[in-house]
Amino acid sequence: MSVSASVHAKAIELGKLAVQMTSRAGSGHPSSALSLAHIVTCLMYRHMRYDPKDPWNPANDRLVLSEGHAVPIVYAAYADLGGHVGCSPGGCACAGTLKPADLDQLRARDSVLDGHPNPAEGFPFFDAATGSLGMGLSVGAGLALAARRDGLDRRIYVIVGDGESREGQIWEAADFIVDHKLNNLSAIFNCNNQGQAADVSGQQSAERLARKLEAFGWNVASIDGHNPEQIAAALEKTGDARPLAIVAKTVKGWGVQPFLKGNWHGKPLPEKELSTAFASLDAAGAALGATGAPALQRPSAPAQPARPAARVAAGDVAWPPFGDAMKTCGLGDALARNALATRKVYGAALKIAGDLIPQVVCLDADVSNSTFAEIFGKAHPDRFFECKIAEQNMVSAAAGLSAAGYIPFVNSFAKFISRAYDQVELASISRANIKLVGSHAGISLAADGPSQMALLDVAFFRAFTAVPGDDRVSPLCWFFNPSDAVAAYHCTRLMTAIRGMCYMRTYRPEVPLLYSPDATFEPGGFGVFNPGGDIALVAAGYMVHVAKQAAELLGKQGIRATIIDLYSLPVAAEKLLDALRRSGGCALVAEDNYGGGLSSLVAEVAAVDGGVRTAGAICRRIPKSTRTAEEILDYCGVGAVQIADQALSLLRRPVS
Amino acid sequence: MSVSASVHAKAIELGKLAVQMTSRAGSGHPSSALSLAHIVTCLMYRHMRYDPKDPWNPANDRLVLSEGHAVPIVYAAYADLGGHVGCSPGGCACAGTLKPADLDQLRARDSVLDGHPNPAEGFPFFDAATGSLGMGLSVGAGLALAARRDGLDRRIYVIVGDGESREGQIWEAADFIVDHKLNNLSAIFNCNNQGQAADVSGQQSAERLARKLEAFGWNVASIDGHNPEQIAAALEKTGDARPLAIVAKTVKGWGVQPFLKGNWHGKPLPEKELSTAFASLDAAGAALGATGAPALQRPSAPAQPARPAARVAAGDVAWPPFGDAMKTCGLGDALARNALATRKVYGAALKIAGDLIPQVVCLDADVSNSTFAEIFGKAHPDRFFECKIAEQNMVSAAAGLSAAGYIPFVNSFAKFISRAYDQVELASISRANIKLVGSHAGISLAADGPSQMALLDVAFFRAFTAVPGDDRVSPLCWFFNPSDAVAAYHCTRLMTAIRGMCYMRTYRPEVPLLYSPDATFEPGGFGVFNPGGDIALVAAGYMVHVAKQAAELLGKQGIRATIIDLYSLPVAAEKLLDALRRSGGCALVAEDNYGGGLSSLVAEVAAVDGGVRTAGAICRRIPKSTRTAEEILDYCGVGAVQIADQALSLLRRPVS
Repeated sequence: MSVSASVHAKAIELGKLAVQMTSRAGSGHPSSALSLAHIVTCLMYRHMRYDPKDPWNPANDRLVLSEGHAVPIVYAAYADLGGHVGCSPGGCACAGTLKPADLDQLRARDSVLDGHPNPAEGFPFFDAATGSLGMGLSVGAGLALAARRDGLDRRIYVIVGDGESREGQIWEAADFIVDHKLNNLSAIFNCNNQGQAADVSGQQSAERLARKLEAFGWNVASIDGHNPEQIAAALEKTGDARPLAIVAKTVKGWGVQPFLKGNWHGKPLPEKELSTAFASLDAAGAALGATGAPALQRPSAPAQPARPAARVAAGDVAWPPFGDAMKTCGLGDALARNALATRKVYGAALKIAGDLIPQVVCLDADVSNSTFAEIFGKAHPDRFFECKIAEQNMVSAAAGLSAAGYIPFVNSFAKFISRAYDQVELASISRANIKLVGSHAGISLAADGPSQMALLDVAFFRAFTAVPGDDRVSPLCWFFNPSDAVAAYHCTRLMTAIRGMCYMRTYRPEVPLLYSPDATFEPGGFGVFNPGGDIALVAAGYMVHVAKQAAELLGKQGIRATIIDLYSLPVAAEKLLDALRRSGGCALVAEDNYGGGLSSLVAEVAAVDGGVRTAGAICRRIPKSTRTAEEILDYCGVGAVQIADQALSLLRRPVS
Repeated sequence: MSVSASVHAKAIELGKLAVQMTSRAGSGHPSSALSLAHIVTCLMYRHMRYDPKDPWNPANDRLVLSEGHAVPIVYAAYADLGGHVGCSPGGCACAGTLKPADLDQLRARDSVLDGHPNPAEGFPFFDAATGSLGMGLSVGAGLALAARRDGLDRRIYVIVGDGESREGQIWEAADFIVDHKLNNLSAIFNCNNQGQAADVSGQQSAERLARKLEAFGWNVASIDGHNPEQIAAALEKTGDARPLAIVAKTVKGWGVQPFLKGNWHGKPLPEKELSTAFASLDAAGAALGATGAPALQRPSAPAQPARPAARVAAGDVAWPPFGDAMKTCGLGDALARNALATRKVYGAALKIAGDLIPQVVCLDADVSNSTFAEIFGKAHPDRFFECKIAEQNMVSAAAGLSAAGYIPFVNSFAKFISRAYDQVELASISRANIKLVGSHAGISLAADGPSQMALLDVAFFRAFTAVPGDDRVSPLCWFFNPSDAVAAYHCTRLMTAIRGMCYMRTYRPEVPLLYSPDATFEPGGFGVFNPGGDIALVAAGYMVHVAKQAAELLGKQGIRATIIDLYSLPVAAEKLLDALRRSGGCALVAEDNYGGGLSSLVAEVAAVDGGVRTAGAICRRIPKSTRTAEEILDYCGVGAVQIADQALSLLRRPVS
């Protein structure tokens, strides 16, 4: 009973801080924070085994706040506990101890207390950015998977809002967690029954959520989320083989009278009303016997685990030469026939990455026999995680695995990775070290039609490549687009060595080698074939082969075309500009996707100085099914003949 | 009993066609098709009331094949029934009657039989492209919503694969359908237990799916999907207030011996094995008494409905002048203060669109008090559909509403619309007439931090604008990016009048007017302020205001900057080039997002002729929370001072 009183007292103290910091910041979500006051108190002061002074201790239990806007209540607790902040374990400019006075800097430019959980800005208590809703349960799943692989007795707690449990991704994660038997995870559903614009739907009521979770195979405890004894009893129900879901009924704005009338979602109190709010919380506490309750005793921090999980420096391993690698992976015959699909070579290279680097893991969405991630899966079944047809959960789970030190390769058709673009962006905010590999990119898969073709991925991922990362040198994402087997092998190797997000396109058709087996590749590099021509044909991936055919057609008309293969972005711009100048100062860029891709990039590189003329030959209509790659290229206006024609037009265009 | 025999006979006949057409095409999914042979036979020959000769009759029942790869079985039935094909009711090049012999053209370039359902290529039996999995139930929800609004007694059938029911969107749709009481929809879950790479998870077993659907509030019937009597009994269970889900256990490759060993997902039989397959199907039929069974009698086609739903020509209505519109929507005071957020003006304009055009409807994802779609919702509650926090379902449901003749405006934060980019692309393949409006775009919302900021939307949607649509004139998507209240009003008006997909950005901050209330706007147009300067500062949306501040700073240094406001894409390129040439032949483009946006566009326009130099000032790091818009602009390198500095650098850069 005295523990309950102490929990109430602490919840009220944290609630005051949450209300105050949002009022001082002039924005934030105090009412959501208050609905979690007791649950967060129970977790952070009683049940979670962790060391606030060493948030990077791999034995710490972890909390994922999927409902990211409720974060002020966590900030309040962490400040009260004097938790360590900073953006890296090695010490950094923002490193230090969080104090209650720092809370007034919530959402300020120089504060580590971002508007939503954002570990990269210096709040390492969290593993991933949240706030775009519905992603946290998947992140937690990735952390739980990693903990189990690492033999760590840590528990992953995830708090999910009732409103956000409308997001389908929550249910993708619910399936994944059951499939992978992750009963080291506890999910807490915060049912305060208020959304932003109105109350939540009856489909997200506490009762309905409990029924759904049971139907999904979870062990469900339904409680009053402001009752310390019920919270404690529920958190201890972890002995089941099933994952634990706690469905907690709570009150938005708990204890603060003004918040209990109308909808205060996302609205702080005016500062002048703070004293009223505090009095209201004190009255609530008095009624619950909290006044003068003894302080809560936190459990002792866990020791560092005896053996850190096996890791090697991913950039330092020695890879076998290309030809040897192909042979050991059963692709020797295909190599001898000089017909290898880049997707297949990727699968082989990934398997070798797994051989060399124990922290390389692989996720696939029921298409591993198309992406050829199955080559990895067969060699390393314990590091292959089948996600089934649920790409959103796959990407966010990979972000969780990355936060635990793994290097996840995430696979599906390039088209279906677009299902998770919001998750990709949140992973980028988390600085996740994930490698996304999309197969069957562009239009060359032909027969299956446009619903299976990635046509916007180049524009989307190129947008990231234009932005520098925290080191001001690497981009937010490296983009690889190999045209042949040699390039695909080395691009996979480069992705493994790079610390940070990467995206790679692979293609369905089998193609001949363009590069010598001992060719070298580097991030931001490009290949040049037949340098010093009258015009450059710039392409990447499968389109390099089409550009080569176009160059042959141009050759018959006496025009010598240089082929430039942009296998990696962001490209070294000055070098590219130089190569373009050496190719007649004229470049036609050929793409098997919609706009905003390589044509735009080359134009940007050229336009700053104005000395090189460029034009793009992109996919000029919505594709449909055709029987062959040649037909669909022609249909979309980017067949070899059409590229040659457009190159001629550009050459003949009068210069202004 | 004789009806059952007839169903078996027809299912086998269609199964043969499905197997044969995929063998002849050399690709496709015959085993998935066979698992649906009986269900599709029961639907298309017995239960659906529709006229195959008039697929556009608004009284027809409709079928959405979410599991799009199983489409050969539907093509077989439609050809057997002599259904009408063609890409528009008005008659078109591909119009005619589908015959069994046409099935051999499956997936061929000139065929209407695309690899996955694709009405725009000439198969009007379907309403939307499917094939990127998990979207069909949402499309069906949109159709069902439209049918109810139109008072049409049509039923919407949706076939969902068991594997694809792992996609969270299925469960978003399941909630939405219950919320909106759409019991005119029947969902059939095809549980053949085989995915592509392996069997489906136990989480998608027939038993588990039935439990889940019950927990979601559906009326569930579990059946043998190859038993005609059970199928008929289940399809007739429609009297309940709850939506009907039929969970059907089926056999992948039913009746064809070779398909029953191993996993044949997506693999056609070699043509030489067709006779064995046919014999196997005949033997299955003989065992079921199908031999010599009488032909099935289809129900009579429905009459055309007595009164077509109210529609007006959206481009022909007369809108009130801007000032009057603001006043009638309660924004007169804000106008007088000269401080209006574009998001708010959009809400007002949308309300007026609703006043004028009965087929304008609105969907929002629990943020209508942020997007200001609530202004519409209050005026037209019967046309406002609350989708709660589930953006994927929202976009696909809008595609369904569009297929039924509505003009849906789809609202959320621009960031959260990225949750549904795959659905946006499928809507584009369907040529859906939807208007996506993303609020709080870019970084100017400041305090909430990067998880709420759209940073990649310009790159993504611009990619569509570069591709011509079916008329070879309009783009696949129009992009609007208004900088002030006048522009926001007129851009909303233009979107309403345009037939086709549109995307518009709105912003959080209140800004002054830049345009005169009687200014004119057009798709592809742009605004020019202070023409004939030494350099052009190109921007859109909120950044036009920042560019204006930068121009003032440049003015102090004696440099006259022209402001070009790209409020609509694709821009009229020649006109833009001309404007750039009149502004010193030098352009700095300022953006509050990552790369691939307007900077790329302007570079492309300039680079083809090489006469104009351009550079981009884009968001150069991952944003974080700040208290003010000015701070975050500065933090990301695109504040007014930084833009002015970059403009100076470009001006002073030596010309090559």
